[in-house]
Amino acid sequence: MADHPTTSTRIVLASRPDGAPTPENFRTEVVDLPTVGDGQVLLRTVYLSLDPYMRGRMSTARSYAAPLEVGDVMMGGTVGEVLESRHPDLAVGDHVLAGAGWQSHAVVDGTHVRRLDPSAAPVSTALGVLGMPGFTAYSGLLRIGQPKAGETVVVAAATGPVGSAVGQIARIRGARAVGIAGGPEKCRALLEEFGFDAAVDHRDPDFRARLAEAVPDGIDVYFENVGGHVAEAVMPLLNLYARIPVCGLVAQYNGADLERRDRLPGFLSLVLSRSLTLRGFIQNEFVPEMHDDFLDEATAWVRDGRLRYREDVVDGLESAPEAFIGMLEGRNFGKLLVRV
Amino acid sequence: MADHPTTSTRIVLASRPDGAPTPENFRTEVVDLPTVGDGQVLLRTVYLSLDPYMRGRMSTARSYAAPLEVGDVMMGGTVGEVLESRHPDLAVGDHVLAGAGWQSHAVVDGTHVRRLDPSAAPVSTALGVLGMPGFTAYSGLLRIGQPKAGETVVVAAATGPVGSAVGQIARIRGARAVGIAGGPEKCRALLEEFGFDAAVDHRDPDFRARLAEAVPDGIDVYFENVGGHVAEAVMPLLNLYARIPVCGLVAQYNGADLERRDRLPGFLSLVLSRSLTLRGFIQNEFVPEMHDDFLDEATAWVRDGRLRYREDVVDGLESAPEAFIGMLEGRNFGKLLVRV
Repeated sequence: MADHPTTSTRIVLASRPDGAPTPENFRTEVVDLPTVGDGQVLLRTVYLSLDPYMRGRMSTARSYAAPLEVGDVMMGGTVGEVLESRHPDLAVGDHVLAGAGWQSHAVVDGTHVRRLDPSAAPVSTALGVLGMPGFTAYSGLLRIGQPKAGETVVVAAATGPVGSAVGQIARIRGARAVGIAGGPEKCRALLEEFGFDAAVDHRDPDFRARLAEAVPDGIDVYFENVGGHVAEAVMPLLNLYARIPVCGLVAQYNGADLERRDRLPGFLSLVLSRSLTLRGFIQNEFVPEMHDDFLDEATAWVRDGRLRYREDVVDGLESAPEAFIGMLEGRNFGKLLVRV
Repeated sequence: MADHPTTSTRIVLASRPDGAPTPENFRTEVVDLPTVGDGQVLLRTVYLSLDPYMRGRMSTARSYAAPLEVGDVMMGGTVGEVLESRHPDLAVGDHVLAGAGWQSHAVVDGTHVRRLDPSAAPVSTALGVLGMPGFTAYSGLLRIGQPKAGETVVVAAATGPVGSAVGQIARIRGARAVGIAGGPEKCRALLEEFGFDAAVDHRDPDFRARLAEAVPDGIDVYFENVGGHVAEAVMPLLNLYARIPVCGLVAQYNGADLERRDRLPGFLSLVLSRSLTLRGFIQNEFVPEMHDDFLDEATAWVRDGRLRYREDVVDGLESAPEAFIGMLEGRNFGKLLVRV
């Protein structure tokens, strides 16, 4: 038996954040690894995915998933390398998609992982364009947004893993893609790297006017993943029968701005007067019916260059808290991964 | 030629309301009738329908239809009797569905009316259960709400023409119908007259608790026609994948309460965490695909007693403004009609 690590370094929820998370909400521990049982594998975490939904799990506020307990390991999707296997279908050296969380090593059931084919695409893409974020874009856009050729699709956080896939898949379907991002560098990437038809900087003082100029025919699909002031600027530009898949509200996760006025009545009036469709979703809902198609289509699109992706990789598990905190403020540029 | 009236009494928009309409916003005029041209008919208004959407047309706020101009005749659906006809398919004495508005007589194109069969159902039902309100209930519930057998459907203003049809059609489809109405008398009617499974009085100080008790399995479809505090009580009780057809927000039409807090972020979080579907609609949207089915089905249901209706008839065109003002406050009990 090889000389395997006997401990795992892991990051746990030390306390619940009040507003934006701080480094004090996280704590690093070193724990003994259990022995590998029948049907299990020992994984070395190669990549850890950092995603906005994790912020929700840190709080007790009712959400679509149960919150973490204080002291729990921070959850997260991972790509792991098999160091030891007692599962018949998994061999030492295999790379697998797992949900091992913020830790350097883990012993998991072989049934809870999916083996990756490194020749099909870099294994890191299983956490991004070919993983949960990519599938969120694919399923929400095609199933709820239902863009038609010639329609205008708007998405924010558009250089992120969900947003960049939304815009590119919209274009593959013949729609016009308008991306919203923070800062000129990201806006340039939307046009030059991801092939969006237009890009608008939400930090521009004239953001609302720029956005209106970028959608001369109005907005038919607004893929909602941020909320906040971006959503507010989008609302008046929505066309009759516009569709709004709602998969995230990252601008709100650290606590909403305290608005003096109640915007809910006006929002509902807009839903009524424009016959809008608003539909919340979590990608899991569409896995049974769409995930196989997604893997087939998206893998082919990535191969032939129609679906590009950008990764923002930070090194070392100890970098995860700061990187996560920065992501909630939009400081990452592309799919945020920790190379553990 | 018979001795026909040469003038029409009509009620026009005298000024735009600021908040709740007042009698001063209306003015009565007597005008000469035009002669009946080729293809036209002279109608005597038998029934005028009063509906909440009319409040929207009195204001300039952007809505789903262009506002009235000050001085315009108040619009509205009517049942008219043909006094004179120059249209080949319409005879003197016929009753027709028209949109003649708040006036005693009108000359209209024969192509703009639909002849009614008084033997099929009382002609007044063409403005209620077999008319626009009934179709709003039918199309919005079946097309957007999509209740399944055993699910719970909640509707407010439930003794009104839309709400009462929503509850009864929900039951016809095997769902459980819970109605919300103002006051014990209306709640009793929901149970005894319309056959709802439960009724909740939104004026009850314990309204929220009573509503929660009435929906032990949560709410799968909330047919939104009022907004306001009723909607707020419903929201926390919505189940995962609940559907919310939004066809009206009558509680908001006179101006929303000024809430100190902004409820929009919390509402969007709920849409996300419960995977809710919110869909605004105006019944016109579904006319091409569903109106024939509606007339067939609803007429049969009315005949066999499965779809009951209640009318609240006031006499005289001059009563229309007060009746309309009262309707916006929930003072009517059933479909509000003016017998002209």
